[in-house]
Order: sequence, then structure tokens, then C-alpha cells
Amino acid sequence: MERARMAAVNEAREILLESAPPRPKVERIATRKARGRITAEPVRARLSMPSYPASAMDGIAVRSGRTQTATPETPVSLIEGTDFVWINTGDPLPEWTDAVIMVERVHIRGEREVAVTDPAIPFQHVRQIGEDVAAGETLLMARVRIRPVDQASLLAGGVREVPVLTRPRVTIIPTGKELVPPEIDPARGEIIEFNSTLLAETLQEWGAETRHGGIVPDDPDQIRRAVETALEWSDLVIVNAGSSKGSQDFVPAVLQKMGHLLVHGVAARPGKPTALAVVEGKPVLGLPGYPVSAHLSLEWFAKPWMEAWQGQETPSGESITARLAEPVKTRVGAEDHLRVRVVATPDGGWEALPLFRGAGATFSLSQADGWLRVPAETGEWKRGHEVSVRLSRPSSVIRRRLWIAGGDDPALDVLVSAWSEAIGRPVARQATGEQEAVNRWRNGLCVGIVLETDAGGPCPALPDGWDDQPATVVPLGEREWGWWVQKGNPHGITGVSDWRRSDLRWILPPRGYGSRLFLERLAARAGIPVPDACCEIASCLKAAAAVSGGTAHAAWGIRTDLPPSDCWFLPDTRRSLYLLLSPAVAKATEGQVLLALLRDEKVRTALMNEGLELSMTAGRD
Amino acid sequence: MERARMAAVNEAREILLESAPPRPKVERIATRKARGRITAEPVRARLSMPSYPASAMDGIAVRSGRTQTATPETPVSLIEGTDFVWINTGDPLPEWTDAVIMVERVHIRGEREVAVTDPAIPFQHVRQIGEDVAAGETLLMARVRIRPVDQASLLAGGVREVPVLTRPRVTIIPTGKELVPPEIDPARGEIIEFNSTLLAETLQEWGAETRHGGIVPDDPDQIRRAVETALEWSDLVIVNAGSSKGSQDFVPAVLQKMGHLLVHGVAARPGKPTALAVVEGKPVLGLPGYPVSAHLSLEWFAKPWMEAWQGQETPSGESITARLAEPVKTRVGAEDHLRVRVVATPDGGWEALPLFRGAGATFSLSQADGWLRVPAETGEWKRGHEVSVRLSRPSSVIRRRLWIAGGDDPALDVLVSAWSEAIGRPVARQATGEQEAVNRWRNGLCVGIVLETDAGGPCPALPDGWDDQPATVVPLGEREWGWWVQKGNPHGITGVSDWRRSDLRWILPPRGYGSRLFLERLAARAGIPVPDACCEIASCLKAAAAVSGGTAHAAWGIRTDLPPSDCWFLPDTRRSLYLLLSPAVAKATEGQVLLALLRDEKVRTALMNEGLELSMTAGRD
Repeated sequence: MERARMAAVNEAREILLESAPPRPKVERIATRKARGRITAEPVRARLSMPSYPASAMDGIAVRSGRTQTATPETPVSLIEGTDFVWINTGDPLPEWTDAVIMVERVHIRGEREVAVTDPAIPFQHVRQIGEDVAAGETLLMARVRIRPVDQASLLAGGVREVPVLTRPRVTIIPTGKELVPPEIDPARGEIIEFNSTLLAETLQEWGAETRHGGIVPDDPDQIRRAVETALEWSDLVIVNAGSSKGSQDFVPAVLQKMGHLLVHGVAARPGKPTALAVVEGKPVLGLPGYPVSAHLSLEWFAKPWMEAWQGQETPSGESITARLAEPVKTRVGAEDHLRVRVVATPDGGWEALPLFRGAGATFSLSQADGWLRVPAETGEWKRGHEVSVRLSRPSSVIRRRLWIAGGDDPALDVLVSAWSEAIGRPVARQATGEQEAVNRWRNGLCVGIVLETDAGGPCPALPDGWDDQPATVVPLGEREWGWWVQKGNPHGITGVSDWRRSDLRWILPPRGYGSRLFLERLAARAGIPVPDACCEIASCLKAAAAVSGGTAHAAWGIRTDLPPSDCWFLPDTRRSLYLLLSPAVAKATEGQVLLALLRDEKVRTALMNEGLELSMTAGRD
Repeated sequence: MERARMAAVNEAREILLESAPPRPKVERIATRKARGRITAEPVRARLSMPSYPASAMDGIAVRSGRTQTATPETPVSLIEGTDFVWINTGDPLPEWTDAVIMVERVHIRGEREVAVTDPAIPFQHVRQIGEDVAAGETLLMARVRIRPVDQASLLAGGVREVPVLTRPRVTIIPTGKELVPPEIDPARGEIIEFNSTLLAETLQEWGAETRHGGIVPDDPDQIRRAVETALEWSDLVIVNAGSSKGSQDFVPAVLQKMGHLLVHGVAARPGKPTALAVVEGKPVLGLPGYPVSAHLSLEWFAKPWMEAWQGQETPSGESITARLAEPVKTRVGAEDHLRVRVVATPDGGWEALPLFRGAGATFSLSQADGWLRVPAETGEWKRGHEVSVRLSRPSSVIRRRLWIAGGDDPALDVLVSAWSEAIGRPVARQATGEQEAVNRWRNGLCVGIVLETDAGGPCPALPDGWDDQPATVVPLGEREWGWWVQKGNPHGITGVSDWRRSDLRWILPPRGYGSRLFLERLAARAGIPVPDACCEIASCLKAAAAVSGGTAHAAWGIRTDLPPSDCWFLPDTRRSLYLLLSPAVAKATEGQVLLALLRDEKVRTALMNEGLELSMTAGRD
């Protein structure tokens, strides 16, 4: 068992491909259904296209020799039936003709007589047999991915059936007693099993046929039987989770008994708890349980195996060069894979913003624009360092995206989504502190920022340096802020004054956020320090959700109907929300559309349903 | 009728989008089936993930306060059940605990007693409720293309069904009395109807649902009824062919009667005979009949309409900057769209080689690597001019491709395909003249060239300048050459001496090709000039096919079983075929694999079946 060892990702991949090389089979399928499939052998035309000499023009078909003396001064007269016939594009040429004169060059002389003033060159405007495709010509080489234009050229050559490689068959077996299918709402201790969807859909994109092996509990015997059954149909089997070194991680031992465990553990974060085995000559991959790890491990091992099967690379994302928006620190010894958001910079370049690194952060996987690989020997990259980012969405989409920075408010999603739809460009929000938002705005990295201030007070006090680039200030409305506490407020929390108590754990907005600055000012006035037992969460909804779990006692946030119902909201204060729009965007169609949306009754109602008490002047010029 | 006018492509597109804007509907579908679909509205999480505070580590769950005094010198002792519980990754945290200490930091003291030497920070190694996804969070904005990672994050948030835009429904109606479905071999005057496959498969790639409207003859009433029926189901209707200005082109008039003809004719080559109309508020596109024109016109009009439907760009090919390998001449007044092959240059750049321009050349559509647009006002671009090429296959595939230049021989396809398969890289042939082949080789644009010489004679006489870069000369074998003539040789053709006759039309290899040079030497010795009535075709198979049509009387070519059986082959001479391999490739694995293939019995048999009489030394070192 312990013979299988930890390996670098590259090394592990080579071991897998050598020990369990793909063995594709060949099947003949209809050319009409062959899009995306891979040719198994060179494909030759069966018929010629055109299959007869055809006219390439509307006009008359003639014997070229008959027209050799024609000039504007000495036109040659031709008699229908004997010297010429009328012909349309695509019509077969009579056997006694060898050229076509286009209708624009034909002078009508009588009912059955025309004249021409230029000699016709032999073969002029004639599509020879086989001009497009000649029988016997190789239309596609082996190992070519068939596109619509290839289907067309196959059909043109009379090829109705095409020999293609079978799709690799992959069975995915999720394991874990805590898993429930997505159709069931999870109880405490249960987790929705969505990894198999993530893996299957990705594999299908790469060209695989997939099956779900059923959720199997963490039981060595059941795992073994599930793998055995899967191997009957599959070319590759994936067991998801149970490949680590914990007491419930049976997969490596099971695979070692069934066949040969090649690798146990790869030197990468996330993705380390991966087990690679060969059973009955087929690869069996034990992938980590966390979705991010499973996703990466699939890319490292299943993808190259499928590429070897298909004899070519899987079409994958672009790579770009970006500058790091913040320093990156990693532990040396294993390569790190970081999700990043990518922002287009005004100079035409790119900036990469590392996201939350948690391996369980499925949402960040969806939010990410790409991946940054930090080599095993690198411990730190400074802000501004140039890195290569492998994109997970098209660069054209990222380039067109508009950014809003600043404080979090779920109501902003309603506005941003309506705006995005109306202007046909993606718009994204990034929660940041106030100063960070202003910096991003000043560097052209976002078109707007969200600031908050005391209700009824003046417009947000603009930080230093703002004035030289006057923003358009759009008052959005007011919002009730307060403390989310456990139902019934069992700890009798009243507000910032309770920060003195040592029995409470708090969830606060991160340092530098407008709402945090407000609390700090409040506490400072009363001489109360920020409590040690606190955790910073930028998202209002995540903060409230965390309180509902009981590990924290109170979270500062907005009144909203969205988070779990087993919390109480203790209202504390009212604050105003402002959107500051860059002058360029405010003047452009984009900005005008946004202001119009803020006057739109449907949008206003939607925003009010989010708990935002709209300013009368929002959207009014 | 003549109110509809000719328009530039851009202008025509705008008219279409304004007159028949897309009207997508919304449907709710299972998240598991939603890959590739477009969100219709913002999608929010219904549940939090995790739905309970969970351990992020294997270890013990504790109350952090209980461990505050722990140091290596003053460890804190903890009793199981009272002070701690053992916990695995993902397990729910007991309500009385608020932190996890990883197993590596726990010192076992007794059966139910452990000690810790560091204080636990509140929330340490705890995944809060909603850490991944909090209920209410916006997981996807509207108008986002759903990827597998998005499906995963939706399911994590308990979203089983997702509101998406309906796929646009498109019906394609091929028209023309000469069309037969691909299941039938065409008789003289008939054409296989493959355009509808080309159009439907392309539209499906862009996200449409398509239907085939049945082949309809060129009859105004039948066309009208077919469009009427199609409109019942469709969001967009395509009528293929009949949109030009010929006597059989009824589509524009029919569409004008049914609704409003917006545009008739676009200023572009190919693609000009396009008609755009709006009927019952829906767009009806009359696309040209030639496959290349239909393909382009679909890109110009159906694609942007679908992008407007989806609220985003269709993922499409990359664009690269390439240098023209030869000058390009076009007529001003209409934009020209040229198919090009793209070759990676040794300096990391790209070279673009324009292909045959015929609008009926389906095969060239499949062979092309991309498109070059020549603006309406440009008449000529010089060789070396920098142009932008829109690729129709991934640049990574093009970059890895190896090229063989020189004379055409269908047997080479067998060799090249086997080679490509064995080395896992695309290999392509380009038929060129001898000097052109040598030039390309010397410029690093191909790794091998094919030369021919008199059988039994010395190795090919290497053109000037070759010597300083010694090639590896691989003798392939001998090949019988002669004249393809009509069955029974009705014109009594014997050879080059018949070039003197004025009643014959010839098909010869293009100037500069090895086989053409051979014929010219032969003729020059006898004092015979090259005949005027001749047409140049590079492909041996296309040349033979053209003779079978009767428009030409004789074609110079190789003996092969592949072309139509209604020709006779008059043997004339035997010539030897040599492959000259670049020294770098000959030494590399790629070259070694090729030499090994030439020794392989299966490959040798396949080559001999192609009529190549293999040299004993082919592949022998």
C-alpha cells in the first residue's frame, strides 16, 4: 500500500499515461451526426463534386473554338442548338460544349441567334468534374476534430458515414455517507452531491460519454463493488473523495487491492489528496472531495488522458499575461493553483486579483476568470509581478466587463444585472474597502464605486485626490443597518457596547470598509476597542448566515429578507448609499442607461423589495 | 420589389437587427442540463453551503476560550466529551464548540484526554454556514453562459432549476430542383444537398435549435408555403439559394410579397446574392447557394442576430496577425473574403497563404485555417503585407502542424496520415512547384519536400543553394505516369506529340511543378510548344476527374485506381519519388518515426496499394 508515493503533478501524469494508456476503438457514424468527433483514419471522397461539368455562370454554353475570331469589330454570330444553348449556374454542360459565356457578354440578334464579341477561352466558367472534390481525394486526415465545414466537405464527396474514435466512457462514483442528491434539501450534517455534475459536464465538454455510478457510502467493500461494476462499461473510472489519508479514506487501499496504486498524493495545493491507479488495464482516478480540488485534479489527469485518446489537444481557454493586483504568498514544496479575477487595465493589459483560496469555495470557482499556477519553488510574488493566467472564460467577455467597487449590498446585484442586460455588457461588483475602491477608480480599474454615509448627512466625504477627477454622484437610497443575532437574542446583545464582553464572538465587515469605519468611529467615541474574538466577512449575506450557525453571536449587517430565518435583526442605524460614476461612463450611453433604469418603476420596485429605501432623487438629473 | 437595395455587410446587419430584433422567451430547466445555456435573470442561492458549521480539518473541536493559556511550556489538558470531540473534515461542529485544532497539533495524554500547546483562535478551521454560498447571494447575473463550474455553484446553493433563455429556433429550407439528399448518389445534373447540414450544425454550435424544412423546388408558390409553415415554429427562417437575380431566383420576390424585403444583395465577395427580409416580425434570410457564400452570409447575419438574442458574443475563433505569402488582388467596391491556410514561421509569427477563391469550393472551406477580409476600398496587398486572419481552427493546432511541400501524389496522404497519428501532431501537404518547395524549406516553412526525377536516374538534382543545408534524402519509390484520356481513347491521343493538334484540350500540372517540367523538357526536345488550350490543375485526382467529364481530352497524371472508372490510362514513363527531410526533423523523434513507418509492413502495403512501387531502400538507413 505505501509503495504508492507522493509525486509532482507532471510526474504523476506521465506515470498514469504510461501505465494506463488510452485504447480508443473505432465506430462508423453518420456524417450528419459527426460534429465534434475525431476521425479514426484518413477519409477519402467517394464521389466527385460536381459530378458533371457544370456552368459557373448564367449565360450560354459554346464550343470555344467557334468563337476564336470574335472581336467587337468582327462579332461571331451563334445559332441556338447548333452553336450554343442557354444555361443557368449549376446546369450540366452539353457534351459538345467546352466553355460558358456570361449573359452580360451575349448580344441577342434574333429569337435563336446571338452574337459574341470576345473569344471564349476553353474551360471558361466551367466547373470541371471534381473541381470541388475529386473522388479519391483525402478529405480529412486521421485524428481530426470534425467541424461543420468538414461535414459539408465529406457530404460533398459522397461520404455519408465516417469512421471516428469512440468517445471515452467515464463513470463517476461519488462516495460519502454525508452526500445527498441535489433533488433533496440537506439536513444538518448532509451535503448536496454536486461534484459529479461538475465532473461529468466538464468531461462531456472534452468529448467523453459519462455515467453516474450512484452515491456510495464510505465503505471499502461497497466502493470496490461500485468500481467493479463501473469497469464493465467504462474506459476510465472516477471515485470522488476518500483518497486522502484520514480514517475514512478507503479508496487508495481498495484500488491497491483491485489493481495497482500508482500515485497517492500529488505535490499541489489544492488537489493534493489524489490517488491514481490502474485496474484491469484501465485508469481509476481517486479525486479529492473538495470541488476546487476535484476540478483541478480532473484537469491534471483526466484531460491529458482524454487528449491522448483523441490524439489532440482539447480546445481550452486562452492564456494571458497579467500583473498581480496584490502580493501572493505560498508555501514552497508544492505548486499552488490560485483562482483569480482578471480586470482589463486602461493600457490594454490585464490585472489579476487572487480570490479566496478555500478548496471548498465552489462559488469562487464560478466567479473566477482564470487560474494562476505558482511553481513549487516559488514562495512569494510581489504586487505587480507579471504572471501567466489560464482563462476560464473568453478574454473578449472579460475585456468588455465593467466593474463597480466598494461596499457590499445585495440590492446592487439587481441594479447591476439590469444595467448589464440593458447595455449588453457584463458588469461585476467587487466588495472592497473605501480607499481601495477610490484607488481602483483612479487607476481606471472600475467605472463606479459604492460609498455609504450617515443617513441625512452630506454626500460622502470624498477622499483626498478625488476632486481632480469629478465623479457623478448618484444617491441610491437609505438602508437600515443593525446586528444579526441568534433567534431570541439569547445573549442579550445591544450593540457596540457589548464589544467589552469576553463571552461573545463577532462578525464584522473587513477593515477599511465603510460599514466597519462607522462601527470603529462609534466604538472609539465610547472608548471601546474592537473585540479580539471577531472574524471579517465582506458579504452581508455570508455574515448573517454565519450567525445562524451559532459559532458567532452577532454580525453587523443590513436588514434583508434573504438570509436564514432563524436569526433576529436588531435595527441600529440608517445609512445612505451612493454610487459614484466615472465621468467618462456617466456621459456615455452606458451611464445614461443606468440613470434611466433608476427612474424605471420596475427596477425601483425590485430595489425596494431588496430593502433599499430609494432616494427620490435616484436617477433624477 | 426593387425598393430593397444592395447594402454593405455592416449596414445590412444593422437593418436586419433593427427591423427584426430577437425576442427570446424564458424557460426553467434543470440545472444539471443547463450547460451552455444563457441565464434569463439573476440567479440567487436558495440554501447556504455549508448548511451547518463544519470542520475544515481532521482533528478536535473545542471552545477556543478553554485553550487561551496553552503554550508549549504550559499545555492545556482537555477531556473528551466535556472539552473536546474528535472530528473529521466536513463533520458538523457541536454547538458548544467554536474552533478546530488539527490532529497534528493534538497530543494524546490518555484514552479520553489530550493536551494542546497553542491557543485556538475563535472560528479556526471552521467552515461557517454560507462560507461557500450564502442563501440569497447572487450566483449568476442575467445573460451569462452557464459552464460546468456554474452548474456546480448553482447546485451548491440549492438551485435545481434555472431560468434560461429559450434557444432560438431556426428552420432551414433548401431550394432547387437539382438537389438530392445526401443519402442518394446524384445522377448527371443533380447535386447533393449538404448546405443544410453545414448551416444547421453551425447554428447548433452557436446555440440554436434547428429543423430541416425539406427540399423545395424553385417554385414561388412552394417556397411561400414552405416559409409559412416554417414560421409557425421558428424564430428565424433560412431559405437557401434562389436569392440572386437570375430567372430562377424567386426568393426575394416571394419574401417581398409575404412581408418586407429589407436588403437584396450585399457588397461582398463571395456572399453577394443574399436577401434579408422580415415576415410576421421574424427575420427570413435568403442565403446564396454556393456553400462558401452561404457559410459567410450565415456568419454575417444569423450570428449577430443570435448574439443579440443571447445578449453576448458567440465564442468564436481567435484572430492572428500574419504576413501574406503571396500578393492579393481584388476588385474594389465590395469587401472580399479569402480563405487562407496559415503556417507558423520560425520567428514565432504567421504566414497566410490564400486558397482557391471559388465559392463552390467546399473542400477549401474545410482545408482553410481562417479568413482574410479585404476591405471594399482595397484593391491590392503586396506579398509580406500584414493582415489580420480570423482563425477557423485553434492556433495551437496550427502552430504544431508540420508541412510537406512539393508535387502531388495521393499515396503521400497515406504516409502523412500515419506519420501524423504516430507522432500526435498534425501534418499537412501543400502542392507546390519545385523551386517554391525549396524556397519554403529554406525559409523554415516546411519540414520536408517531395521531388520527382526520372526512374533509374540519379537522386534529384538539388537546386542552387540547397547544399548549405543538407537534407536527408528518403527515396520513396517509383510511380507510373501517363495520360488519362476518355474511355476508348476516341481522339487517338499518344502523347506530347499531340500537343500540335488544335482539336484537343489538355490538363497539365501547373508551371514549375516537377511533372510539368518533365513534360516541357520532353516537348522542347521535339520542338513542340505547350498547347494554348490547356488548364492547370495541381491535384492528380482532380485532373483525371476533369477528363472524365469530357470538357478536356487528356490529363497528365499517375496511374491510380482512385479516379472515375470511365477514363483510360495510357502509360508513358516511370518516375521516382523522393522525400527530402529537413536535417532538424530527420534527427528528431518525428523523423525517426517516419523512417520506421517506411519500414513497417502495414504502411508499405498501404503505399503499394496506392500504386507506389516502393523502393527497397525507402526507410532503410
